[in-house]
Amino acid sequence: MSPASANRAERLADRLAGAGEDGGPLDGYLVTELTNVEYLTGFTGTNGACLVTPERRLFLTDFRYAERAKEIDGWEVEIVSGQWLEGLAKHLTGQVGFEDDHVTVRTADQLREATDAKLLAAGGQVERLRRVKDAEEIERIAAAAEMTDRLYGLLGEHGLAGRTEAAVDAWLTGWMREQGAEPSFPPIVASGPNGASPHAEPGPREIGRGELVTVDMGVKLDGYCSDCTRTFATGSESELDSLSREIYDVTLRANEAGLAAVRAGADGSEVDSVSRELIREAGYGENFGHGLGHGVGLEIHEAPRLGPSSEDELIAGEVVTVEPGIYIPGETGVRIEDLVVVGERGVERNLSSFPKELSFV
Amino acid sequence: MSPASANRAERLADRLAGAGEDGGPLDGYLVTELTNVEYLTGFTGTNGACLVTPERRLFLTDFRYAERAKEIDGWEVEIVSGQWLEGLAKHLTGQVGFEDDHVTVRTADQLREATDAKLLAAGGQVERLRRVKDAEEIERIAAAAEMTDRLYGLLGEHGLAGRTEAAVDAWLTGWMREQGAEPSFPPIVASGPNGASPHAEPGPREIGRGELVTVDMGVKLDGYCSDCTRTFATGSESELDSLSREIYDVTLRANEAGLAAVRAGADGSEVDSVSRELIREAGYGENFGHGLGHGVGLEIHEAPRLGPSSEDELIAGEVVTVEPGIYIPGETGVRIEDLVVVGERGVERNLSSFPKELSFV
Repeated sequence: MSPASANRAERLADRLAGAGEDGGPLDGYLVTELTNVEYLTGFTGTNGACLVTPERRLFLTDFRYAERAKEIDGWEVEIVSGQWLEGLAKHLTGQVGFEDDHVTVRTADQLREATDAKLLAAGGQVERLRRVKDAEEIERIAAAAEMTDRLYGLLGEHGLAGRTEAAVDAWLTGWMREQGAEPSFPPIVASGPNGASPHAEPGPREIGRGELVTVDMGVKLDGYCSDCTRTFATGSESELDSLSREIYDVTLRANEAGLAAVRAGADGSEVDSVSRELIREAGYGENFGHGLGHGVGLEIHEAPRLGPSSEDELIAGEVVTVEPGIYIPGETGVRIEDLVVVGERGVERNLSSFPKELSFV
Repeated sequence: MSPASANRAERLADRLAGAGEDGGPLDGYLVTELTNVEYLTGFTGTNGACLVTPERRLFLTDFRYAERAKEIDGWEVEIVSGQWLEGLAKHLTGQVGFEDDHVTVRTADQLREATDAKLLAAGGQVERLRRVKDAEEIERIAAAAEMTDRLYGLLGEHGLAGRTEAAVDAWLTGWMREQGAEPSFPPIVASGPNGASPHAEPGPREIGRGELVTVDMGVKLDGYCSDCTRTFATGSESELDSLSREIYDVTLRANEAGLAAVRAGADGSEVDSVSRELIREAGYGENFGHGLGHGVGLEIHEAPRLGPSSEDELIAGEVVTVEPGIYIPGETGVRIEDLVVVGERGVERNLSSFPKELSFV
């Protein structure tokens, strides 16, 4: 176990003291959500669970992962050979918290039938720990972001006009895999009017000249995700219409204003409103229909959230996106997204270094 | 609403009569799993639910899908503007079944707080309906399978040796997207020793000559999935070792024997055992570690299951895979998979038409 992950189990155990009924103590906490299991143990497989009590750090999996489980330091390992839920149940005693925001009603009912322990809904404990990244995690996210920046550079040389969105997407994904990485989500390549949809899927449309093309992509490398959006223009400067140019400029200013508002102690809604207000004042308030950003780590979307209804207060060490956009139905769209580390007084480090001036490729 | 989907809501309503406590009637059934919602209404979006009672067919979504909801025939539509769960709750009365195998404990608790109706765990009703495909569904799956066969043909011409697995994967995915389809799952391109892992991810390995290459892929077209595996050989016939050739022949015979055992009334475990026994007798019993097959439809994996512990009895009109494999750790592997329609007396129709003799590409 690396010192970092030993620390994670400790921090989770510390949280048990006040996570029970009426703020009382829990006798144990059962983690079954696989990303949370990975965070605690480093285990990546399709079946695993952790039980943390004041005294125990127990990791459970099945025979398929018996070899891999040997690499997990600092945890007792049990290979469950019979029914999975019964294998978990026999270790539960007293009041045990479980992840009610992930476990289905059916699974919880089956678990309750198999144990005398009292199961208490207490989800979100590990997600809370995951929000703040340690130095090793930030380095992994930075490495993923750097690879993404490199790919943006190659994409500029490769060119966009004359290719289909699907071909560009395949080229991007192929490059990631050749580097030994995976896309952290299916890349978005949205050209011309398709750019008006924030979550457009790359399709057979051939990218023309004098268009905006929104590319939203990231890689997953060593378990950690990156996320970055850049909007390119195709053809020469004279071919781009003035609306496209205007919404690009407004979006870029909104991105920069949002970045300037990021700091520990700010609310997710506060940072969002800075970018949103700027876009609204420019006359495009109706054209920015999604939240400003989200946390990134083992998952591409995790806490905290930056958006109008977010109540998350930012904490130093969180890694979040700032991604305003303007979408003009039937015509065009822009989004510009950076990935940054939250610091005490502002952005501690912007992990997205690919230039943001509009480039014609 | 197409006649087919009107029929689906009817069939679900019919099931309410015996789905309550002690086999009594339910007053309603709440469907929140999105593929099930799509099956009933044709709606594809990220937020929607159906409430079916003896009298009502109510579809609920939020403002983002107000336009799309107008296309849904035969259902009352309600656009929920406030809290989602409260929007659902106010329509629930009496004893209402919900999908306990999909709904989390937290969501169920919140729903219970918002209603006086009695919520009963009654998951699986729509999945049961989805098992048997109607004529329109079979045609869609057949069209997806045909596109996949076409891609196998092109792949043979395109060649494998000298390319990386990742490059082949990108090419396959790019072609699918250019046709306006999506991969039904990330394609597997597993060459040489990588073929020993049934779920290998395409990587930077350059495909050599005299190797087996397992390609497992399908497309999603008009909502429906296909799934097909072929194992190719690279180089010339003289370059392939005898072990690779032998396990290919055994796997092909196991595929054919499995296909011959498929018929309505057979158990999933029965069909599985026919292929498994053949592989065991050839001396490779330890080298076939997964189930023989699974249903395919709106999802790439759905009921029924063909495997040693399956208790599913096959029904005419189901569409299932038959995919035995032999995996030799550190050396090589083979899998051969067809997608077929279950008929009363055998396979009604094999949707995978790409040849299964070992081809050298």
